Amino acid sequence: MVLALAGTAAFTYAIPLSLVIVVLLAIVSASYVQTIHAYPNGGGAYIVARDNLGDAPAAAAGAALLVGYVLTVAVSISSGVAQINSSLPALYPYRVHLSVILTVLVMLINLRGVRESGIIFAIPTYFFVIMIFVALIAGAVQYLTGKLLTVEDLPPLERVGVAQPLTLFLLLRAFTSGTTALTGVEAISNGVPAFREPRSRNAATTLIWMAVLLAVMLVGITFLAVQIDAVPSEEETVISQLARTVDRGRGVLYLMTIAGTAIILVMAANTSFAGFPRLAAILAIDGFLPRQLSTRGSRLVYSRGIVVLTVLSAGFIIAFQASVTALIPLYAIGVFLSFTLSQAGMAHRWWKAGHLSPGDRVEERGSALSYEPGWRARTAFNALGVLATGAVTIVFAVTKFREGAWIVLIVLPALMGVCFRIHRHYRKLAASLSLEEYEPEPSSTRHRVIILISGVHQGTLRGLRYAKLLSNDVTAVHVSFDRREAEKLQRKWETWGEGVRLVILDSPYRLMLEPVLDYIGYITAQRQPNETITIVVPQFVPRHWFDQLLHSQTAMLLRLVMLSKPGVVVTDVPYQVP
Amino acid sequence: MVLALAGTAAFTYAIPLSLVIVVLLAIVSASYVQTIHAYPNGGGAYIVARDNLGDAPAAAAGAALLVGYVLTVAVSISSGVAQINSSLPALYPYRVHLSVILTVLVMLINLRGVRESGIIFAIPTYFFVIMIFVALIAGAVQYLTGKLLTVEDLPPLERVGVAQPLTLFLLLRAFTSGTTALTGVEAISNGVPAFREPRSRNAATTLIWMAVLLAVMLVGITFLAVQIDAVPSEEETVISQLARTVDRGRGVLYLMTIAGTAIILVMAANTSFAGFPRLAAILAIDGFLPRQLSTRGSRLVYSRGIVVLTVLSAGFIIAFQASVTALIPLYAIGVFLSFTLSQAGMAHRWWKAGHLSPGDRVEERGSALSYEPGWRARTAFNALGVLATGAVTIVFAVTKFREGAWIVLIVLPALMGVCFRIHRHYRKLAASLSLEEYEPEPSSTRHRVIILISGVHQGTLRGLRYAKLLSNDVTAVHVSFDRREAEKLQRKWETWGEGVRLVILDSPYRLMLEPVLDYIGYITAQRQPNETITIVVPQFVPRHWFDQLLHSQTAMLLRLVMLSKPGVVVTDVPYQVP
Repeated sequence: MVLALAGTAAFTYAIPLSLVIVVLLAIVSASYVQTIHAYPNGGGAYIVARDNLGDAPAAAAGAALLVGYVLTVAVSISSGVAQINSSLPALYPYRVHLSVILTVLVMLINLRGVRESGIIFAIPTYFFVIMIFVALIAGAVQYLTGKLLTVEDLPPLERVGVAQPLTLFLLLRAFTSGTTALTGVEAISNGVPAFREPRSRNAATTLIWMAVLLAVMLVGITFLAVQIDAVPSEEETVISQLARTVDRGRGVLYLMTIAGTAIILVMAANTSFAGFPRLAAILAIDGFLPRQLSTRGSRLVYSRGIVVLTVLSAGFIIAFQASVTALIPLYAIGVFLSFTLSQAGMAHRWWKAGHLSPGDRVEERGSALSYEPGWRARTAFNALGVLATGAVTIVFAVTKFREGAWIVLIVLPALMGVCFRIHRHYRKLAASLSLEEYEPEPSSTRHRVIILISGVHQGTLRGLRYAKLLSNDVTAVHVSFDRREAEKLQRKWETWGEGVRLVILDSPYRLMLEPVLDYIGYITAQRQPNETITIVVPQFVPRHWFDQLLHSQTAMLLRLVMLSKPGVVVTDVPYQVP
Repeated sequence: MVLALAGTAAFTYAIPLSLVIVVLLAIVSASYVQTIHAYPNGGGAYIVARDNLGDAPAAAAGAALLVGYVLTVAVSISSGVAQINSSLPALYPYRVHLSVILTVLVMLINLRGVRESGIIFAIPTYFFVIMIFVALIAGAVQYLTGKLLTVEDLPPLERVGVAQPLTLFLLLRAFTSGTTALTGVEAISNGVPAFREPRSRNAATTLIWMAVLLAVMLVGITFLAVQIDAVPSEEETVISQLARTVDRGRGVLYLMTIAGTAIILVMAANTSFAGFPRLAAILAIDGFLPRQLSTRGSRLVYSRGIVVLTVLSAGFIIAFQASVTALIPLYAIGVFLSFTLSQAGMAHRWWKAGHLSPGDRVEERGSALSYEPGWRARTAFNALGVLATGAVTIVFAVTKFREGAWIVLIVLPALMGVCFRIHRHYRKLAASLSLEEYEPEPSSTRHRVIILISGVHQGTLRGLRYAKLLSNDVTAVHVSFDRREAEKLQRKWETWGEGVRLVILDSPYRLMLEPVLDYIGYITAQRQPNETITIVVPQFVPRHWFDQLLHSQTAMLLRLVMLSKPGVVVTDVPYQVP
């Protein structure tokens, strides 16, 4: 599509560009194979940067990857829906709805658990690979026998306007658009622990296979697309044009290829649904994200991370109207930034390893480091990776700046700032909770219990029994809106109150919380040092949850107000209505 | 506007129709004066129906009035904004925004408290009455001296289409549109307690004054509007047309009249902001609405009721795009239904009073009843009221059915159903809590305390001190994600744990809540009868509330899960981070 800006003649550059991308893919994959072996417990860019470069680059890599994962979902799902729309153009107006529904569907599959989703995702992957190769081989045979046609009923060439000259800038833009094919590499490196033993070797094999398949498909599709004069379009994908030309119409081969591609693209989002929550958990354990993200839900998945990812990517899909063209410029910059940081971390690691004495072994958080004989070559190789991926990152930021990369260039530092803010909070908290130089407070000896009662009934008496269990010093408090009712209550209390003192607070204007707060303020003001006060609030638990709306949440409101008062605890004693 | 459907010639019927409305106003006002004297503590339709007719008519009256109040706000605010737009047509596209902003503004004034809003609302009322009378007198003088012109630059006559024949149906529709002027009567009757002593007399005087002013203004405006050939329009109100004709353009008199009318209409919403929350509180005390509506907020106003009213009326304004023409058909039906029920209640009351022996006195919830010598005349008078207002209600429902009255005819029974559902819940709850035939459970003697700890620090130790205050049987429980961390924690606990037993629950998959629930399930399964279990959760209270997002709400989640388990109480012990 980018090359189309310079007129269809520029399409001949597509093949050399795709070959350059394959070279880049080879460099990145090869250096990631090194990372996988060095980090058998998972060596994502964040961990490599954290262990070898420090907090700031680590936070940068973490933020870049999180953004990358979110955009992977948005782009994959939108592309998958674009495939569906290519064969069913009537669905085009509903692409945003469809995309959001599919995102939620993938979320639900992932919330169900990892094991099941493994099976669900394996079969379509094989199906897709086979279908694309069938189409490529059929196309290659047609080409070699001179029977390959050109596309018929071309969709309108959009956004072309006046043809721009084919500048280096345009070539670079086209190049960066193609590099988005590389973003799956990081996911494998991050997910090493999910592989079967020997994990590192299996992960490395997978990575190499993926790179090879990717390279063949990329070059093959690009080559055939140029031969058939395919035209980029929002309404029909290049794969759809290719498949229906090879298939001589929309036959079975066409439909199977499109179906396979659509399914695999939607499934591709799954990479992120595995990667994002896992990375968020690692960041949370390190104190860069809220700690809740570090624990799993009952189905052994990081449910919170999965939900956060879904909300964010659905937001991007809606904001960009599920347009792949609009989302792509935002997409790969984060991933390439994290590639660069990961490579830099690995280069630094080999450098350190080279300067250890043979036999030394340094324990690091992520993996052990020992002397490495081939350190010079390895350092050089990863340095080459830094140069290659760093250059792509910069080219990306510059050439795609106006098309949306600026959004990522704002979001990334902002996210890093949030990470640092969270990190500082946890560090300060740990310091202020520390037991070093801590003088234990003298244990509190007096415990005063106040029970709030709205009437005298079985629920109140349950609360009263609990209150008496806590302390011998119990006071019952009732807020009265009506003198006569209060007198009735007092008489009833004499029968049922087990001798506990009853205080009635008059509230002629029907205020509820305020008289209680005044009373507690009065009690706390006159309490002795180290006296603890517990406020017991009997709480109905109706059979249906919506009936809860019919009961005042006094305990919750009191707890909120009392949170800031040391030495006061609010307890609600549930009473299950039979 | 309704008469315009039959062509402008039908406007001559406007004056006779307005006179019929004045007669109706006289009947309703006179019978409400009786109600005010019989119910010195406030005699709204709900109370009168409840005390004299029973629960079902009472709920009907209550629901009708609540709906009426909501629509009063929607109509008043929309009309006020229509006045503003008449003088500043550029604002017409923003009428919905303006209306919602004004609704929120009136809400804020009312949330600040009754006393202040009394003063704020009195001055504009006098200003409005004076301005309208100035305009009416000026118009009358011009008419008598033959100098009254007709309107210039008429706004386009909307929605006319083919002129319909002037049927009785059309006349009745026009009549019902006019009767909406009566809806203020109920507010005074409901609000008697807000008047200064002697309350009933002051309220009755106010009611009569209001009725007289209303009658004069209604007839005066209608008469002059016909003389100047005013035309109904969504874009310029009749008052605006009248004022600029009398003023010979948009001069000072015009602007002051429009300003006065606009302000008074927006302020008119205040009637509902006083009436709705007060009625909702009465209904809540009687168990027809959630009890929370029966208590006041810290500024001595029923804040919850005020907020509910604002949300509902803003909803209507948005749904009907602030169109007075569209809202009016929904508006008066609820009010007239409650008029009818109120009159029926009063008629029944006099009938009962007539059948008491002289000297007898029956205490009722709302007021005392004693023999009334003139009971025959009073009964007959209220029966006439029932006929008149009942007829208007039916005419309203029939003639306005297709224009929106059907919405109210659906909403009203639905709301009544909700009221009955709530009522039943409270009655069943009271029965199941009753202490009749209640055998006190044997007091629990054993109290087991479990404290959850995420680490050993000052917050944990605060929680531990509290736990030891509750019982001698304390167990500390820690969920461990990592064996090495757990061993460190165990060593630290030996130093600081004050000899309390520590249980470590391994959770290699980083589950948090589930191991705790399993453990509690295990403990509760083997507990002795009448053993109570308290789970203490130390809870950080960070200095900034948003930092709370960085801490897991274990206590809250546990409490939700444990609500349904009898004999288990969850307590969070706040630790204020210094």
